[in-house]
Amino acid sequence: MMIDLLQIAAFNATYAQTIDSDALEQWPTFFTADCRYRVTNIENEAAGLPAGLIWVDSRDMLYDRITAMREANVYEQQRYRHLVGLPIVKSADRANAVAETPFLVVRTMHTGETTVFATGTYRDRFVVEDSKLLLAERVVACDSSVTDTLLVIPF
Amino acid sequence: MMIDLLQIAAFNATYAQTIDSDALEQWPTFFTADCRYRVTNIENEAAGLPAGLIWVDSRDMLYDRITAMREANVYEQQRYRHLVGLPIVKSADRANAVAETPFLVVRTMHTGETTVFATGTYRDRFVVEDSKLLLAERVVACDSSVTDTLLVIPF
Amino acid sequence: MMIDLLQIAAFNATYAQTIDSDALEQWPTFFTADCRYRVTNIENEAAGLPAGLIWVDSRDMLYDRITAMREANVYEQQRYRHLVGLPIVKSADRANAVAETPFLVVRTMHTGETTVFATGTYRDRFVVEDSKLLLAERVVACDSSVTDTLLVIPF
Repeated sequence: MMIDLLQIAAFNATYAQTIDSDALEQWPTFFTADCRYRVTNIENEAAGLPAGLIWVDSRDMLYDRITAMREANVYEQQRYRHLVGLPIVKSADRANAVAETPFLVVRTMHTGETTVFATGTYRDRFVVEDSKLLLAERVVACDSSVTDTLLVIPF
Repeated sequence: MMIDLLQIAAFNATYAQTIDSDALEQWPTFFTADCRYRVTNIENEAAGLPAGLIWVDSRDMLYDRITAMREANVYEQQRYRHLVGLPIVKSADRANAVAETPFLVVRTMHTGETTVFATGTYRDRFVVEDSKLLLAERVVACDSSVTDTLLVIPF
Repeated sequence: MMIDLLQIAAFNATYAQTIDSDALEQWPTFFTADCRYRVTNIENEAAGLPAGLIWVDSRDMLYDRITAMREANVYEQQRYRHLVGLPIVKSADRANAVAETPFLVVRTMHTGETTVFATGTYRDRFVVEDSKLLLAERVVACDSSVTDTLLVIPF
């Protein structure tokens, strides 16, 4: 069966809820072992500067990031909420799909202050492994090029 | 036919539009007669404090809330807009479903000022009655624990 | 085959991404040649004031708007991101559909400041022409009645 819009949308819903419920140790399980994960901004992408703020090329490195975050105790100081739009499926067959999906992340501080933290698109390459949809690549292209706080949380 | 993601998503879209278009008297019709409806925050939920800010255990009490709001003339002073994400369907059969769904509420004041009012998740138990999907239970778990204005509007 | 929720949702996802990726010259291609496109606010709509801020009654006029925007060089100074909810399909057959869909637009300034720019609903009439779904009419009903900056960008 071909990978379809609803399957990708359901994947993204679970992915977002995993992050927002602070189940960060599950986050790397959405990726393949040799995945690429990159956080950048749209201006850099348009200019052909592929490096970005975060460049990861294996699932093990995603686990390392979470371990580092837990040690730094950074994530727990605020709460995030992802709202993920419907994907635009650019190509799909039974084993592979390419999609782009808009997202919005809202941050709530302990004081109760709630603000838009980031917006952008996921530019994804999905594969099916053992009947399971996984990210072979996720490029997180943020609309803002201001980068200070983007380094710490998973998108 | 099993209750599915699209059916729940369509339900939530209509539910949100009913509130945002100020058709508040229709809001209780999305619930069963003996429904549970609770507004709380994620910290309290995680701590096992189930009471929350609002605790309602019948559809009649939802009607009472709307009557009280109309008399207090509170809701009309600003405008709300719900953006509801896709549900994560945790279990479903022909007559029952359990789902969790992220939401975002934006508030627009008469001055035109537009801000993020609340984010969180709906934690829902659906049933089918007379071929109609209804909420047997909706727990609205807000990300913010700051509560002053949360008491007045339906989520 | 009847026009359905998913088809409209996929249309809106592509529509939004076309605007947000600054491919504005493609924007009119989502409309019929004799389309109606109108930007207004919910208060005016409720009061039966149909004129709105922007009133366009052909696709050619949409092209003219984009040309004018490019010459004024207005759009490029900030970045927009649409988050579009699921449509409420009010009626649909093989060739026509009426739907209402909530949206949220976030604006990111060059400084990195990110704010909610607008919310509201699309009130749409779709038709199928040459097997392609197109907008015969889109009324953009904004929640805010404050109008200064609404004139420039496509919604």
